[in-house]
Amino acid sequence: MKKIYVGIIGFGTVGSGTAQVMYDQMDRMARRSGLQLVLKTVLEQHPQTLPEPFADIPVITSIDEFCQDSDLDIVVELIGGMEPALTFVLKAIAAGKHVVTANKALLSEHGMEIFQAAAQANVEVGFEASVGGGMPVIKAMKEGLVANRIDSIMGILNGTANYILSKMTNDGAPFAEVLKEAQDLGFAEADPTYDVEGIDTAHKLVILMTMAYGMKVKLSDVTIEGISKIEPTDISFAKAFGHRIKLLAISRNHGDHVEARVHPTLVPEDHLLASIGGPMNSVHIHGDMVGDILIYGAGAGKMPTGSAVVADIMDIARNIDRGCINRVPALSYLPEEIGERAITPLSHLRCPYYFRFSTVDGPGVLSTISGILGQHNISIESVIQKGREAGKTVPIVMHTYEASEAEVVLALAEIDALDITTADTVKIRVLTGDK
Amino acid sequence: MKKIYVGIIGFGTVGSGTAQVMYDQMDRMARRSGLQLVLKTVLEQHPQTLPEPFADIPVITSIDEFCQDSDLDIVVELIGGMEPALTFVLKAIAAGKHVVTANKALLSEHGMEIFQAAAQANVEVGFEASVGGGMPVIKAMKEGLVANRIDSIMGILNGTANYILSKMTNDGAPFAEVLKEAQDLGFAEADPTYDVEGIDTAHKLVILMTMAYGMKVKLSDVTIEGISKIEPTDISFAKAFGHRIKLLAISRNHGDHVEARVHPTLVPEDHLLASIGGPMNSVHIHGDMVGDILIYGAGAGKMPTGSAVVADIMDIARNIDRGCINRVPALSYLPEEIGERAITPLSHLRCPYYFRFSTVDGPGVLSTISGILGQHNISIESVIQKGREAGKTVPIVMHTYEASEAEVVLALAEIDALDITTADTVKIRVLTGDK
Repeated sequence: MKKIYVGIIGFGTVGSGTAQVMYDQMDRMARRSGLQLVLKTVLEQHPQTLPEPFADIPVITSIDEFCQDSDLDIVVELIGGMEPALTFVLKAIAAGKHVVTANKALLSEHGMEIFQAAAQANVEVGFEASVGGGMPVIKAMKEGLVANRIDSIMGILNGTANYILSKMTNDGAPFAEVLKEAQDLGFAEADPTYDVEGIDTAHKLVILMTMAYGMKVKLSDVTIEGISKIEPTDISFAKAFGHRIKLLAISRNHGDHVEARVHPTLVPEDHLLASIGGPMNSVHIHGDMVGDILIYGAGAGKMPTGSAVVADIMDIARNIDRGCINRVPALSYLPEEIGERAITPLSHLRCPYYFRFSTVDGPGVLSTISGILGQHNISIESVIQKGREAGKTVPIVMHTYEASEAEVVLALAEIDALDITTADTVKIRVLTGDK
Repeated sequence: MKKIYVGIIGFGTVGSGTAQVMYDQMDRMARRSGLQLVLKTVLEQHPQTLPEPFADIPVITSIDEFCQDSDLDIVVELIGGMEPALTFVLKAIAAGKHVVTANKALLSEHGMEIFQAAAQANVEVGFEASVGGGMPVIKAMKEGLVANRIDSIMGILNGTANYILSKMTNDGAPFAEVLKEAQDLGFAEADPTYDVEGIDTAHKLVILMTMAYGMKVKLSDVTIEGISKIEPTDISFAKAFGHRIKLLAISRNHGDHVEARVHPTLVPEDHLLASIGGPMNSVHIHGDMVGDILIYGAGAGKMPTGSAVVADIMDIARNIDRGCINRVPALSYLPEEIGERAITPLSHLRCPYYFRFSTVDGPGVLSTISGILGQHNISIESVIQKGREAGKTVPIVMHTYEASEAEVVLALAEIDALDITTADTVKIRVLTGDK
């Protein structure tokens, strides 16, 4: 049986998971492809012996020595982060190795450089595991939806953030407490910034948008707001309005410009994305021909991510075997078709809004606030004013009809400067429609 | 640009939809693949002129003449049903044409014959559109989940049945009334038997199981129960127990034997499948590495189905262009690896049950029924007994703990033979766990 030789860079959680998936599923994959995937070497920065059943596999500490192995067909980069991952990936490509990576940060910041190098060297770069862990969303975008203009992408793409929001929703606990608990359970990193501030989600949105639209996207194109300022009171008011709060990546395609934003969002509770709980991930895509598609699965974890990494390895192995490298372009469009497209300014957004004003209770407060909103063409759909106590700070919560982001920013600046408000107004955008 | 020539058999809803998708997306697909898909001929039984923009495309009425066109690369069968579809597909294969079909009935009954002929002729057979319309579930099963043992499949695979059940749930209307309305709206066929009696769902389950397990499956392997006996009262009692009634295709993998069943099922309302409303389809798959995956989309319709058909055409076009026909085996395992596996007898099933007994109200009725259940080791989790009226038929509704199907059948036979019951007991299986 034809053997395809694989080397893994980084034998941490995902690296060892990938090795385990290759090992456990070797026979099944051979029966599916006639090919045997063989883990040949591992690159680790410090010399070590791998645990069983991988103890016999040589561990190499030099990337140059690792790449010099002419038997090696595919290099799998699983150390994450920028450096030395970028250098290692570029060296592997320069040595003529195909590359598989789960590194969304690397791809979203250096993707174009990597894909150009790969095109020149005529090697493949697989990255299914970089978005949505085990979910086959990259393949769906590249092949299953090939006959579609992608009109929108909405995704729950960070398991930690979704776990925290779900737990806050179910238990009514505050953000800091749930984060601490998630850290103790190993669901959240010691430094959770990338996860809770939406940066990891934005990395993944950059990758999805690149493929959906065949365009160059930079991380700085994405408007990013995290979930660390969400309070239990917002979650319970959202519930009262029939919504769940989710950290969504959203991109709508307007033809000559496209939206790119990550922020907490009120999702109607009858929308499937509202039902995605715990650490699970999901992507909702609207294609002009297929309509709505949703894919759901584990967004992270050793074996789910390993499953996606190995699917990429097998895809490339089949192409090596059949002599059809880059049968499907890495970014779903031919390299020469990847162009520039404008990003819709956030100020052009129109959607309904949730506002929570912190006000000093007293006569005329609601009238003052709604007056300013009205001057900015912001119409109120409903108001909840609870726990009135003269002279104390009380919340006024509103759900608006569709309004202009630009007007909302102006209106809130005016309102927050008033003496009757005691803190910055909390503003959360509301999802409408399925596109 | 390289052209790939396509012929369509049957220019009905899906046939014209496929032509439209190819036409509308031609430029986009060229930018994604460097290939141009060209609709060259249409086979229709009666001579006719096609509507714009297809009026110039020749309509041929003879399959032999159609297949003799040596330019034709791919033949797309979209007439549905058994004959002449089977003959046409086999003739196309014999003429060395690749085939794409959306015909689940044909594949589930004659799949092995078709795939063997295709393997001999070294042509491809694509069938993404045969299950779940536009959802890329076949590709996920063949490629995205290649590194997984599939442990279970649960699917809502018939849009008509799901539309009817959703409508009954939302409106409380009886089956016959909702069916009539669905027929008037064009959501249900004049003869809805295949859809509402679970046969169409079973066709799709046969296809999914074949690929998931690499085994031969026959339609007669599947236990099939439809939804025509579901009453609004069952739906509202199910709601009271926190469930929705869905027509599910279910297969669990027990290693040396696998389940194969289609029946109405009580799905816990916090399960994602409970949220799949209207005519939408969804497949929930558990892989041993990836865990739970769910894919959701339009299960039918002109353009969604066309989207999946064209994805298959493009997949084969890329393989023609790159000389890598059958790069991925049609049934996900190599032909020689497709084996036999036992089907779990339904009597071996264990699950919780929903029962609705039609009883003559009177003292001792509940005690008699629960006594018989107890003798068969069936434990009751909860009982609802409503609208007592001495001497009249009243429902007693129960939710049991996990029980044996064999014992349930025996117990219900005893109970239904009693004078205190006035009609056959309604029995609906309850879904537990995610696998």
